[in-house]
Amino acid sequence: MPDVILAPRNKEEVAQVVQVCAENKIPIVPRGSGTNLSAGTSPSNGGAVLLFKNMNRILELDEENLTVTVQPGVITKTLIDYVEGESLFYPPDPSSLKISTIGGNISENSGGLRGLKYGVTKDYVLGLEAVLPNGKIIRTGGKLAKDVAGYDLTSLLVGSEGTLAVITEATLRLIPKPSYKETILAMFKTLEDAAETVSAILAARIIPTTLEFMDQGTIQVMEDYKQIGLPTDCEAVLLIEQDGAIETVVKDIERIYQICSNYGAIDVQKAETEEEAEDLRSARRDALSALARLRPTTILEDATVPRSKIAPMVREITRIAEKYNVTIRTFGHAGDGNLHPTCLTDIRDKEEMERVEQAFEEIFYASIDLGGTITGEHGVGEMKAPYLEWKIGKAGIQVMTAIKEVLDPHNIMNPGKVFAKSTKERLVMANV
Amino acid sequence: MPDVILAPRNKEEVAQVVQVCAENKIPIVPRGSGTNLSAGTSPSNGGAVLLFKNMNRILELDEENLTVTVQPGVITKTLIDYVEGESLFYPPDPSSLKISTIGGNISENSGGLRGLKYGVTKDYVLGLEAVLPNGKIIRTGGKLAKDVAGYDLTSLLVGSEGTLAVITEATLRLIPKPSYKETILAMFKTLEDAAETVSAILAARIIPTTLEFMDQGTIQVMEDYKQIGLPTDCEAVLLIEQDGAIETVVKDIERIYQICSNYGAIDVQKAETEEEAEDLRSARRDALSALARLRPTTILEDATVPRSKIAPMVREITRIAEKYNVTIRTFGHAGDGNLHPTCLTDIRDKEEMERVEQAFEEIFYASIDLGGTITGEHGVGEMKAPYLEWKIGKAGIQVMTAIKEVLDPHNIMNPGKVFAKSTKERLVMANV
Ligand SMILES: Cc1cc2nc3c(=O)[nH]c(=O)nc-3n(C[C@H](O)[C@H](O)[C@H](O)COP(=O)(O)OP(=O)(O)OC[C@H]3O[C@@H](n4cnc5c(N)ncnc54)[C@H](O)[C@@H]3O)c2cc1C
Ligand SMILES: Cc1cc2nc3c(=O)[nH]c(=O)nc-3n(C[C@H](O)[C@H](O)[C@H](O)COP(=O)(O)OP(=O)(O)OC[C@H]3O[C@@H](n4cnc5c(N)ncnc54)[C@H](O)[C@@H]3O)c2cc1C
Repeated sequence: MPDVILAPRNKEEVAQVVQVCAENKIPIVPRGSGTNLSAGTSPSNGGAVLLFKNMNRILELDEENLTVTVQPGVITKTLIDYVEGESLFYPPDPSSLKISTIGGNISENSGGLRGLKYGVTKDYVLGLEAVLPNGKIIRTGGKLAKDVAGYDLTSLLVGSEGTLAVITEATLRLIPKPSYKETILAMFKTLEDAAETVSAILAARIIPTTLEFMDQGTIQVMEDYKQIGLPTDCEAVLLIEQDGAIETVVKDIERIYQICSNYGAIDVQKAETEEEAEDLRSARRDALSALARLRPTTILEDATVPRSKIAPMVREITRIAEKYNVTIRTFGHAGDGNLHPTCLTDIRDKEEMERVEQAFEEIFYASIDLGGTITGEHGVGEMKAPYLEWKIGKAGIQVMTAIKEVLDPHNIMNPGKVFAKSTKERLVMANV
Repeated sequence: MPDVILAPRNKEEVAQVVQVCAENKIPIVPRGSGTNLSAGTSPSNGGAVLLFKNMNRILELDEENLTVTVQPGVITKTLIDYVEGESLFYPPDPSSLKISTIGGNISENSGGLRGLKYGVTKDYVLGLEAVLPNGKIIRTGGKLAKDVAGYDLTSLLVGSEGTLAVITEATLRLIPKPSYKETILAMFKTLEDAAETVSAILAARIIPTTLEFMDQGTIQVMEDYKQIGLPTDCEAVLLIEQDGAIETVVKDIERIYQICSNYGAIDVQKAETEEEAEDLRSARRDALSALARLRPTTILEDATVPRSKIAPMVREITRIAEKYNVTIRTFGHAGDGNLHPTCLTDIRDKEEMERVEQAFEEIFYASIDLGGTITGEHGVGEMKAPYLEWKIGKAGIQVMTAIKEVLDPHNIMNPGKVFAKSTKERLVMANV
């Protein structure tokens, strides 16, 4: 529980809060909508939780420079809808976009379903205004396509999970809204067929907007939940979308359709209307909600591997789930190699929870081993802090700790996140 | 002059060199091809210059993950040609690409002619291997489209101008090679017509690959040099290119052609063959060489403004050049707002050089005033260090200095660059 909850109205008030907290060494936990999945906003050391509900305005749309300037509390979807009204496009679309805030998106460097083609949040942050742990206000970047004046502090703050500064304003890059989009859903007998299809699409030099994946367990649950007619005997489903100029989209989707068939898809459905497209999309978008109905507790991870390693990684996850006798379903962003192994469990069952933890530990281990990382988009937070060193090594931790300590000497900014008291031992495990 | 020049063969040798230098507090100046334009590789404090001529291999092309892994000494053009042979595309193409190295490109976060559509070097760096000032080796990122494990050290090193670490390997992102390209050159009576054309193209929701600009002075010199038939009575020329799928390119270029005409272009030339396109491109590419012939010394800057401010900025540059009675010609990346005011002068003439310095000071000031920055792509180096605070403020300098000091406590990594002993006073100037 926090000791106090504050909702400042502007950067000056944020600066005052930070100054008082700095003087009194009170922890500050910036909080958007709290949808992060890594315990990133739990006030683990008490202190002040900062809300941005009074700093939720879109400040300026600059059509000439194709930028939008916003306060951190703006809801992602509000922003996306607003700029689309002007035929502009803000691509980062986390599945949580109806509720997540831009401040949260920036602080987690969130990805989304359109990330394969358009990149993630950091690719759209041009400039930030932020309050440092010493209460001073900085401005980084600007409405500038190019700026190499000193170190890239904008990128340092993006993804820093509230541990370096409080973001009070952001200038975001927009692009023209693609004029046309097509959507298909392809079902595969085996995981390998699906993985080979992904590779073949990219090898054909096509980068789809969306290339999402669901495994058999997820398909089964989705089908029980919604009866949308997915064949439950297939090991994998791919949701594929392409957007852009109509001529290009039509051509790309034709080729993708062909590739899916060539690589053994047992069925490919193409949406003929936007409604049908929404249906196909919802098969993937609702995956988490469907899974969450199965057991009292849902733990979703986002181990990420080079995209060529998706099939081996999913096989590993299945093997590990069996080994520890836990229920794990996997879906995610196939094009990005960003998987969401999701464990359905019960937090009240201590013994099971221990097995769950061991399973995830082995999953992290496996993804590192395959050249991957412990988190592709959800951040380290408190939950993955003990594993960070596995990815970035001792020297990497030292660099990050040094930066954290020199900018936040009293450790008031979201303490307990990103950096762990101790790193998990990497046990040598069989079969990995 | 350096005290010693070393050309290590691998990361281990780099690490040994750094360790020895750290123990003996010897400055290290990493050096690619020395083409930076900010005195970034002058060994201003003596010490060891590190060359990468023995670390110039392309290590791996990974077609499945669309990445290429290289050593820092690879020449930019070698890499670009190599991946294009595989129908892949590495977009960052600084004009110096025939000679610059990838290590230099990364350390300066270089831009190029295709930057408007495709972004700059940082948008293509997925992972780095680097030797820290303490001699330890870190690896950041990987073959991963997404990775949020801790702070973004990759982005921190990109653009750090050799002041934080020695880069020993880089994993770069590739994209499919666009299949088609068209090129036009449009001439405008007035600067404002050209600027409005740029705005109108972007307002039409078209992002060209290239949108380059030359002012009247540059056109005149180019024409004297090459006689390619540019009308020397026009205030501005735009070189515009679009690439992608043929249908889209044809449509876009038609609209761009129309927009140019509507906004008062006095002539628009469209290349019908690749040879003609090369001719049009060379009008812009050879601008610097042409200008450099005029006087013994050429000083090229890269003040950058929001793209909507290009016309006022060029007017300011012209006014300032007249005020100080110096010869400045301007060309650059209109789409990015990244201008290259180029002063033709004589370093032996002390009195003139003083006026040149004052003029550039006022130019930096003007670009900051218009919401811009002191450097869009050439880096701070030694030359712009005294002006860095104008852009990022005292608090920004403090953050950067803190990071530098904590990672490089003995200040051995390229000392004298980025950080100035003292900041230039910002005088209040009339007419700005
Ligand atoms: C159903 C569901 C689906 C999801 N799908 C995706 C997805 O597709 N892609 C994805 O990337 N993530 C996804 N997430 C994770 C989460 O939604 C994102 O991380 C999101 O960006 C968090 O936004 P938020 O406003 O809830 O931030 P919070 O959870 O409130 O905060 C996130 C972090 O940012 C910090 N923070 C927040 N505001 C500020 C500020 N102004 N200044 C400094 N620090 C700040 C917090 O301290 C915390 O560390 C999903 C989550 C759920 C529950
Ligand atoms: C004619 C001409 C045209 C140009 N056009 C452009 C352009 O269009 N766009 C653009 O952005 N720039 C341009 N430049 C500037 C310059 O070419 C770029 O900055 C380029 O990236 C420098 O590459 P380099 O190999 O010469 O690096 P260098 O000049 O040798 O070094 C640049 C910086 O990087 C550091 N460095 C080099 N290698 C390493 C390493 N391995 N590890 C750590 N630090 C390292 C150096 O210490 C230095 O600070 C141009 C220059 C010229 C002369």
